[in-house]
Amino acid sequence: MAPSGPSTAPARGHREAWWKIRLFRGMANDIRRRAPYYVSDWVDAWDYRVVPATIYMYFANILPALAFSLDMFTKTQMQYGVNEVLLASVLGAVVFSVLACQPLVIVGVTGPITVFNYTVYDIISPRGTNYLAFMCWISLWSLVFHWLLAVTNACNGLRYVTRFPCDIFGFYVAFIYLQKGIQVLSRLGDAEPFYLSIFIGLAVFVVAYICGEVGRGSLFKHPVRVFLKDYGTPLTVIFFTGFVHIGRMRNVSLEVLPTGIAFEPTDGTRSWLVRFWDINVGDVFLAIPFAVLLTILFYFDHNVSSLIAQGTEFPLRKPAGFHWDIFLLGLTTGVAGILGLPFPNGLIPQAPFHTESLCVTELVKDSSDDDAAATGNSGSGGSGADDEGGEFKGHPRNTVHARVTHVVEQRVSNLAQGLLTLGTMTGPLLVVIHLIPQAVLAGLFFVMGIQALEGNGITAKILFLVRDVSLTPRSHPLKNLPRGQWPIWGFVAVELIGFGATFAITQTVAAVGFPVFILLLIPVRAWILPRFFTSEELAALDGPTASPFTMESVGGNYGETKDVSIGTVPDASQGGAGAGGLFDSGMATVVPSEDPSAINLRSRSREDLAELGESSGGNGAAAIEMQPLAASPARTGMHNRRGQAASSGSGSISRAR
Amino acid sequence: MAPSGPSTAPARGHREAWWKIRLFRGMANDIRRRAPYYVSDWVDAWDYRVVPATIYMYFANILPALAFSLDMFTKTQMQYGVNEVLLASVLGAVVFSVLACQPLVIVGVTGPITVFNYTVYDIISPRGTNYLAFMCWISLWSLVFHWLLAVTNACNGLRYVTRFPCDIFGFYVAFIYLQKGIQVLSRLGDAEPFYLSIFIGLAVFVVAYICGEVGRGSLFKHPVRVFLKDYGTPLTVIFFTGFVHIGRMRNVSLEVLPTGIAFEPTDGTRSWLVRFWDINVGDVFLAIPFAVLLTILFYFDHNVSSLIAQGTEFPLRKPAGFHWDIFLLGLTTGVAGILGLPFPNGLIPQAPFHTESLCVTELVKDSSDDDAAATGNSGSGGSGADDEGGEFKGHPRNTVHARVTHVVEQRVSNLAQGLLTLGTMTGPLLVVIHLIPQAVLAGLFFVMGIQALEGNGITAKILFLVRDVSLTPRSHPLKNLPRGQWPIWGFVAVELIGFGATFAITQTVAAVGFPVFILLLIPVRAWILPRFFTSEELAALDGPTASPFTMESVGGNYGETKDVSIGTVPDASQGGAGAGGLFDSGMATVVPSEDPSAINLRSRSREDLAELGESSGGNGAAAIEMQPLAASPARTGMHNRRGQAASSGSGSISRAR
Repeated sequence: MAPSGPSTAPARGHREAWWKIRLFRGMANDIRRRAPYYVSDWVDAWDYRVVPATIYMYFANILPALAFSLDMFTKTQMQYGVNEVLLASVLGAVVFSVLACQPLVIVGVTGPITVFNYTVYDIISPRGTNYLAFMCWISLWSLVFHWLLAVTNACNGLRYVTRFPCDIFGFYVAFIYLQKGIQVLSRLGDAEPFYLSIFIGLAVFVVAYICGEVGRGSLFKHPVRVFLKDYGTPLTVIFFTGFVHIGRMRNVSLEVLPTGIAFEPTDGTRSWLVRFWDINVGDVFLAIPFAVLLTILFYFDHNVSSLIAQGTEFPLRKPAGFHWDIFLLGLTTGVAGILGLPFPNGLIPQAPFHTESLCVTELVKDSSDDDAAATGNSGSGGSGADDEGGEFKGHPRNTVHARVTHVVEQRVSNLAQGLLTLGTMTGPLLVVIHLIPQAVLAGLFFVMGIQALEGNGITAKILFLVRDVSLTPRSHPLKNLPRGQWPIWGFVAVELIGFGATFAITQTVAAVGFPVFILLLIPVRAWILPRFFTSEELAALDGPTASPFTMESVGGNYGETKDVSIGTVPDASQGGAGAGGLFDSGMATVVPSEDPSAINLRSRSREDLAELGESSGGNGAAAIEMQPLAASPARTGMHNRRGQAASSGSGSISRAR
Repeated sequence: MAPSGPSTAPARGHREAWWKIRLFRGMANDIRRRAPYYVSDWVDAWDYRVVPATIYMYFANILPALAFSLDMFTKTQMQYGVNEVLLASVLGAVVFSVLACQPLVIVGVTGPITVFNYTVYDIISPRGTNYLAFMCWISLWSLVFHWLLAVTNACNGLRYVTRFPCDIFGFYVAFIYLQKGIQVLSRLGDAEPFYLSIFIGLAVFVVAYICGEVGRGSLFKHPVRVFLKDYGTPLTVIFFTGFVHIGRMRNVSLEVLPTGIAFEPTDGTRSWLVRFWDINVGDVFLAIPFAVLLTILFYFDHNVSSLIAQGTEFPLRKPAGFHWDIFLLGLTTGVAGILGLPFPNGLIPQAPFHTESLCVTELVKDSSDDDAAATGNSGSGGSGADDEGGEFKGHPRNTVHARVTHVVEQRVSNLAQGLLTLGTMTGPLLVVIHLIPQAVLAGLFFVMGIQALEGNGITAKILFLVRDVSLTPRSHPLKNLPRGQWPIWGFVAVELIGFGATFAITQTVAAVGFPVFILLLIPVRAWILPRFFTSEELAALDGPTASPFTMESVGGNYGETKDVSIGTVPDASQGGAGAGGLFDSGMATVVPSEDPSAINLRSRSREDLAELGESSGGNGAAAIEMQPLAASPARTGMHNRRGQAASSGSGSISRAR
């Protein structure tokens, strides 16, 4: 089946598979793989970790939601407010926790959709069009497009989504956060409230940031650290909400978060059902291009959230399902449109934080080798900061560290945090929320922005470049590239240009077009970058977003075995028929064995492989799967934990059915 | 001569020496030891390090001086202002750089003397007494007391000054800084200027602090880091002085630093010569108790500054001279009083920063052993932060670090920074200084306070106590105490009580009495603490402030050889006659040899030893001097560098004459 790279002549392999789409195949396989775990998804929730994870996610979800609601409230003339945003979160949480293949993914209102919403408002409202009706039509068209994507197995394209576009998107979202924080403050006039708000925003940022740092540091015992890391931000928000009422500040009246009536739409004149028929026919069709953009955004944003929430650092045991979830996302988008809510989708960084908060750890002795390698392309979730910390300010030698043994994979924490959010829409709690000064929410934006930047792979590479070369560990993978530092500069420059273009367009009325820029990054990475960078460099500078196990749903990772020729396991070149092509991915690496008694640690259906045009000649499964770890030095640090998990279960890598 | 400890029966040894004071002996020896280096003190200044050290010290000296001048200006009804404070710095710099035995010690107006000055004002001005005349009489009495101290060799008492009182004093000074920053802000009303000032103060702190952190980190190349560390704070002050004039802030008129006319006293009605005869006779004698308190303060503060500026971490080669310098300090105090200036004395942390900025470094490979030991009792200067950094966030393995080879010991940098300060008193520069908002100076107080706290030994011990024990290196000296953690808690509690008492009294009208509290800490450490803590614990929890080489001027360190019996060099017990007593100190450890060709790395006169009641039977000099390093595990990290320097020159430890 020898597949070949896109820069060579078009050939057989999965290139052909794109044209021979087997409708519904992806969704059906997702359900077939996940269904056997559905009961356990509820039973497994009988675990203490679920309690702190629920409380943590409630705050981690609702606080940014409130900040975004303030933003949209201002910029859409009260079309969207706190109640709409909260209800959108509830909708996403209930639907995805109960029905999704990936119930760990937290769904809610994100920064990009906020940008989308008010840009559409800016374009549409001067025409006199009913805004919510127009948004409803966008959502309905988008529902159709989502379902088309789901039915045609379009999520298989995720195999080309490496860290490269994810990092750029994460960088973009971080700067959107920072910009929103500044915008919130700059709307507050030029008198006492303005300057007090700047101070409060800065103070919220500093205190919440220090809580996070202490949570990742070595001060205090482990439970105290975890408490500070989990609840530091909500406690900071609560503290400063009270703080502005003491001393001289009592005399300054600060702008607070606008709220409405319990369970009622913010715009008091409408019911929850949007009068979507109250629009002329031309506008119905005008909604189509917007729906396309929205679908592109959600295809990327939701799937990347899912990928990162199921990233390589989490030893997950239950299979992923991207096709089914994009189908569900179409559903929630349509429902949200009909109810006049902002459309919820997968949340970064909340989704990976959720998985992280469900990790069960054990203490193990640090070995010297473990922390010798750092990773240049760490994830945009919490993992990047951990890797960095482990290297430069983390655990000193001769100590123990916590290793993740497993994740409490279940549906209850997601559902429960959604129901808590629903409870927040009651009258008394809305009154409490109404006390939060806008300055505190601005500080919250700063915290989110800076923390997102810290965990970003672009930041990690920039820090590597500006770090004193004599203080960088000799074993650092980016330090051993044959062509020296210039490929790193070049790669970072491409990433910053991609970010700059996306961020720049967001400042214009063409902001709705930014998803196109993000989407374009995927072919740029797949087709253009390999012309300028060697595969060794790309292996060090870029990496897969999720593990092969997670990527089963979409047919494996892009480029996972491309270094086969320099690998140490010669079997690899015989693994798949004609392996070695650029796009041969991880498909050839895991081959089903027929031991039915094995634990279903990693399952892979023969149909998946077939669908993608792969033969599944079985040999050398376990050994070959470990091979990419040895071949790509850049990911050694990141993969170590995964490698341990894999090797402990290497005897049980088998087919699910 | 077998000396014995104070808790046992009074006996011979240097106890007797206290009664048989050989007048002028200390001063004479100081001059005799230092005079041979006087020419080289000017010739050695032909070194590039002197240039950045001068510029750095100019800013490090003048910025706190401006902050203190604002404080005194407000609290003494314009008796002291910018011109007085600057002239006091110039006076101290010129006299000490040209005449002192310890020209590295930067002299200027400190926080404690500020407290002293305005407390005296609060007490005296209601009586209708001429404040400056009264201060002049205090200074004249104090001159007498200083000279008495110098003549009677009272600085020999410095051998009992361990890190314990220094750390408490440093902690106290740090909190004074923080309090002053808050006071500056709280005087600014409750309108826009107040809230803008809070924001600016916080921003100055954050930016300057980050500059310092980057300077100590591994980002950027070495010259960039050094630049940020040296000039980050002045550049921050300059930036924010301009920043408050942009955008909406332009409309807010901020309070700025009040300045006077070039080279004129702030109180325009007087000449520089204080009319000290314009006071009644009763008040002349009332000045005596205040002069006693001032003398106690300066005896402690100036000498501790000198000790820390010549701390164990600096490989100094020119001898110290405490007796002569306290004589000079009496002179500058008297002159300052007659001119109506605040009295200058040794500055912490500027004095150790000055020595640090004169260090010449070379790059050496990190060995694994070097950073294995951390120190629990790091200095209040910059060294503590370095030790901490080396352990927890410093250089990763397999890298190089900078080692200090020598210090450019000379008089030019101190003199030049004083002359630059004199230049600042000209009209045009006073106009520039007049632009600095008080909020920026408040931020400067915060920076000084937090940086002083970070480098403090009490902070280091508190951080050790709250650190997760499983994340503390097993080799940490505080981790291996037989009685576990409670001695550390106890020691820290004593330190915090000492700090709390001193800080509390500063808040009352009895604030002038705080030097007594500080002085009392010395006997508490020498007589009371040994009853509750074992000598092993005290060795781990406390340590000498300066090296035996520096302490030669005052007769060695307290308790340096008390662990002789558990030491590894048996010669030590035979070194001095009857060594092993609690107060036998370093006297027995270095014994002159008669090799005239040796470099005068460490000189010791037979007279010094004789004066302190020591016999000088010569044997085993170099080996024994290294012995305390082995005996006290707590100081291993701190002493390593010193140990290297000492061992490289161990063949040349000899008599000066």
